[in-house]
Amino acid sequence: MTRGLLIVFSGPSGVGKGTVRKEIFDTPSHSFEYSVSATTRAKREGEVDGVDYHFISREEFEKMIENGEMLEYAEYVGNYYGTPLKYVNETLDKGKDVFLEIEVKGALQVKEKAPDGVFIFLTPPDLAELRKRITGRGTDSPEVIEQRMQTAREEIEMMSLYDYAVVNDEVHHAAERVKNIIKSEHFRVNRVIGKYKEMLEEFSV
Amino acid sequence: MTRGLLIVFSGPSGVGKGTVRKEIFDTPSHSFEYSVSATTRAKREGEVDGVDYHFISREEFEKMIENGEMLEYAEYVGNYYGTPLKYVNETLDKGKDVFLEIEVKGALQVKEKAPDGVFIFLTPPDLAELRKRITGRGTDSPEVIEQRMQTAREEIEMMSLYDYAVVNDEVHHAAERVKNIIKSEHFRVNRVIGKYKEMLEEFSV
Repeated sequence: MTRGLLIVFSGPSGVGKGTVRKEIFDTPSHSFEYSVSATTRAKREGEVDGVDYHFISREEFEKMIENGEMLEYAEYVGNYYGTPLKYVNETLDKGKDVFLEIEVKGALQVKEKAPDGVFIFLTPPDLAELRKRITGRGTDSPEVIEQRMQTAREEIEMMSLYDYAVVNDEVHHAAERVKNIIKSEHFRVNRVIGKYKEMLEEFSV
Repeated sequence: MTRGLLIVFSGPSGVGKGTVRKEIFDTPSHSFEYSVSATTRAKREGEVDGVDYHFISREEFEKMIENGEMLEYAEYVGNYYGTPLKYVNETLDKGKDVFLEIEVKGALQVKEKAPDGVFIFLTPPDLAELRKRITGRGTDSPEVIEQRMQTAREEIEMMSLYDYAVVNDEVHHAAERVKNIIKSEHFRVNRVIGKYKEMLEEFSV
């Protein structure tokens, strides 16, 4: 069986990854599985364990890191966020695509471990818009905001390590683009050539 | 202005490239220009000069080869087929995508000259189906048929030099896949990163 595609959806903080991801998964026609991240941060109002995140303790998280059970992880504002490896591998082995929505630092770890994944970077319409999104919450100190800006600059430079850059001008359009990319990636020659070579051998007998 | 994409649509003889290409261009929503090939073969019933092909003489064709005015060309069953370079470059410079439907040998020449093109290979549903298509015309000698088979085998091996392999199971589906691939290719990081780097520089001032 052909292994599923590992889709890594990422982008700067505040760009709207979660909103676009929800739009993608609200479409009945999608054919990939969402990998729920694990985190040590506190559950927020309305969040459901196992749906929004697997909420686990710092101790459990660090044990999973030690045992190599995290495909990627990062510490962000004092909390761990990561992708448990087991679910990802089991789903790919079933021939299903797995969709990860993760931070840039995590995506770079996945890139090292699984370079044949599809790496999609969500970008703001322009940087001024990104600044607005970063400062717009209005509850943070100038230092925190400047730190977020610097992170955003670095993250946009990291874009070069991705396969695709999708602009988040409108959530609906961004979601369509991502779904199209996933469809098209299934036709990449390096993903299907093996199947054709087998056919060719059968025919030559 | 961002230069257009050069889309190279190719595949084994008899796989149905022309039919899929027509379906693609029958959609009103496509946004790319078809590059009409030049040929020295005789015009067939119903074909229109400048629409199906530019019908030119052997002498004219060989002069264009000499002057480097062909992006690619091949001799096939005693006739030349080729892509005049001028139209392709002018259209790409306007920021429009150019769509070439050409034979495999020609596609490999384009690959050498324009490796950043999008190379799409149309494949038969399976090789038995391809054999049926090749022999199905029923008017050719076993030698001619065997020669076509050998060519098909070689062409499928050449698939590895392409970016995408699209199965021609149904014309409508194949056309949709090709259109999706073209859309998605516009979001490839190596095609857009320059624009983002400019934005970043502006912002840092």
